[in-house]
Amino acid sequence: MNVTRLALGLQYDGSPWHGWQTQLSRNTVQDQLELALLAFTQSAITTTCAGRTDAGVHAIEQVVHFDTSLDRPMSSWVRGLNAHLPSSIAVRWAHAVQQKINTEDGAAHIAERDFHARFSARSRTYHYLLYNHPVRSPLWTGKAGWVFRQLDIQKMHDAAQLLVGEHDFSAFRSVDCQAKSPVKTIHRIALSQRDHVVMITFQASAFLHHMVRNIVGSLVYVGTGRQPVEWIGSLIKQKNRHLAAPTFSSDGLYLAKIEYDPAWNLPQEASPVLPYF
Amino acid sequence: MNVTRLALGLQYDGSPWHGWQTQLSRNTVQDQLELALLAFTQSAITTTCAGRTDAGVHAIEQVVHFDTSLDRPMSSWVRGLNAHLPSSIAVRWAHAVQQKINTEDGAAHIAERDFHARFSARSRTYHYLLYNHPVRSPLWTGKAGWVFRQLDIQKMHDAAQLLVGEHDFSAFRSVDCQAKSPVKTIHRIALSQRDHVVMITFQASAFLHHMVRNIVGSLVYVGTGRQPVEWIGSLIKQKNRHLAAPTFSSDGLYLAKIEYDPAWNLPQEASPVLPYF
Repeated sequence: MNVTRLALGLQYDGSPWHGWQTQLSRNTVQDQLELALLAFTQSAITTTCAGRTDAGVHAIEQVVHFDTSLDRPMSSWVRGLNAHLPSSIAVRWAHAVQQKINTEDGAAHIAERDFHARFSARSRTYHYLLYNHPVRSPLWTGKAGWVFRQLDIQKMHDAAQLLVGEHDFSAFRSVDCQAKSPVKTIHRIALSQRDHVVMITFQASAFLHHMVRNIVGSLVYVGTGRQPVEWIGSLIKQKNRHLAAPTFSSDGLYLAKIEYDPAWNLPQEASPVLPYF
Repeated sequence: MNVTRLALGLQYDGSPWHGWQTQLSRNTVQDQLELALLAFTQSAITTTCAGRTDAGVHAIEQVVHFDTSLDRPMSSWVRGLNAHLPSSIAVRWAHAVQQKINTEDGAAHIAERDFHARFSARSRTYHYLLYNHPVRSPLWTGKAGWVFRQLDIQKMHDAAQLLVGEHDFSAFRSVDCQAKSPVKTIHRIALSQRDHVVMITFQASAFLHHMVRNIVGSLVYVGTGRQPVEWIGSLIKQKNRHLAAPTFSSDGLYLAKIEYDPAWNLPQEASPVLPYF
């Protein structure tokens, strides 16, 4: 029996869900996807994602892989799974990354060089949206963090550049973080503004738990003038989570894109990474 | 005792609400606003809006008026009411449109020339958002109507222009419509596109019940090639609701702006009328 490893591009509004990872409550994105896979394939399938998102965090394009012996056209996977998924979750594309013929012992082993949603990823891109207005906006509720004091975007940009490169990000690491090392490489932090909405884009090799939301909290302190630009540099040096700002709301956080070797030939969505911006 | 007539700019995400108008369930925007007014002023206040929105319809800027003898700074009305409103509803601004000293019989009568959210309105602007993509997008759920077939925007534009001007809009009028006449004047219908999202903007003296959603349904028939451009003109002539397309989803409909005589000096939001576009 042949086994195919499939990759899915998954989009979700994280507001109603307790994050990605399966829980007894079944109230997570992974649980909903695996229930849809069960309904569509009539077999229990375990999925692996590229980046586990927390409660309330959205995904423009999460990448998930799983193995199946079912042979269906990719469009059928997309339509079939979406028919079983709630309106806040959808499969945007499906792609067969690998096919293998079973070995004699009946097991199709996954080799080091095989595609793996998490381990094959070269980098990840997140967006954080801030709604900057004295009065809250119901149309942005759950979709953007709210800052009512006027933000100085130039100062936030300057502070953000102090974080780019390889650093020990202990100052921005949740106590629950399970990463082996607090050292990560941020490739890029870009700020852009459209009317009252500020978008901060982070691209890094990988992120520590709560790292983006913790950085956003501290950049907001700089943007509102509560701390100077250089404070961000001193936080990096001091490596003390208690000196940085509190974790910012999950509302404005979007897992935007997982970057892989182009050789995997994953479908590339033509749309911009952020629908509202 | 002096009585002040206040106008409020109100924004809401209509998804959780059964429309504007008060119901026994109290599950409407008007009920939530009047509960907040009761909590803030400690008195029962009845509000009047410019345009009653249906269940699921959003408002970027609904305008509401009411009378009160309470003397508070406008910023205090905004903050105070927002503290009592759910996250899907917010007062964006408050403005004292008129103040009057009571007559001897103790009643402050409202004259013909007084400000009235509905009757003083010169025109209304609505936006309708369509998400045009083969696969549904969870990040647009409840925020845009979904059309999976490719839309021809030029044809939709051409068809829309046949609706501009004074017409009998019986073909696009809900059976529940309580308007005295089916004759209305559409000043403008504009289409614009950004990636996979199409925005259709309607400005008219007034709208019949379900008029925008019924027109959108028929424009989508033209856009997908199911009907030719000229069909819209024949619908107008035939005045038969059954010949037009079904009412489109409430998801993508936004009451954007109520236009008044500038002499009323209502606050003008600096932000663009549609947050996501």
